[in-house]
Amino acid sequence: MTPERPPYTAVIFTSQRSTPTPEDGYDDTAQHMEELARRQPGFLSMESARTAEGFGITVSYWRSAQHVRAWKQVTEHLQAQHRGAHEWYTDYTVRVTTVERHYGAQTGRTAPR
Amino acid sequence: MTPERPPYTAVIFTSQRSTPTPEDGYDDTAQHMEELARRQPGFLSMESARTAEGFGITVSYWRSAQHVRAWKQVTEHLQAQHRGAHEWYTDYTVRVTTVERHYGAQTGRTAPR
Repeated sequence: MTPERPPYTAVIFTSQRSTPTPEDGYDDTAQHMEELARRQPGFLSMESARTAEGFGITVSYWRSAQHVRAWKQVTEHLQAQHRGAHEWYTDYTVRVTTVERHYGAQTGRTAPR
Repeated sequence: MTPERPPYTAVIFTSQRSTPTPEDGYDDTAQHMEELARRQPGFLSMESARTAEGFGITVSYWRSAQHVRAWKQVTEHLQAQHRGAHEWYTDYTVRVTTVERHYGAQTGRTAPR
């Protein structure tokens, strides 16, 4: 759960990886971008999942859309966006959303090891 | 890309699976719920990814928040929500959001086989 009451901003980034190669630099850049995002003003949290077929969803949470706009323009992030569009993804979509409400639960079931 | 101009509604559902067993019924129910969702009024599209560690993100897109509220109350869906909370997930979060803008590209890179 994000440490904030709605409304806050969620950015839904979906992508299909092109054929990965060990030396294409994707993993290093993705890790570095996550570390960089976590240091930006207004950052709240981030979560990701990717299927074995290379389809991925990353959602990042921010205090406001203004914070997202600032993050989009960070120089290293611009370079990573360029490589994503030209090297790493066959297609991608970015959706900037306002979270209107959220709810959830820790259910007490046994977690996987 | 969703076949709709913003604003439309995106529901971000994140979940951590409890230890799966072959007979716990999760896969059948998840597939059935997706088929059922696709037949609901206002449904636009749905996409999912889950990590090997059982953390998953499913995003479903709808014409409006009213359509999402109606889907939440469909009897079979209520039963699945109950089993999710009591059997299948160690924790989960639902976020109902309004998509303010979206953009993306098909980049022409080679798709994985």
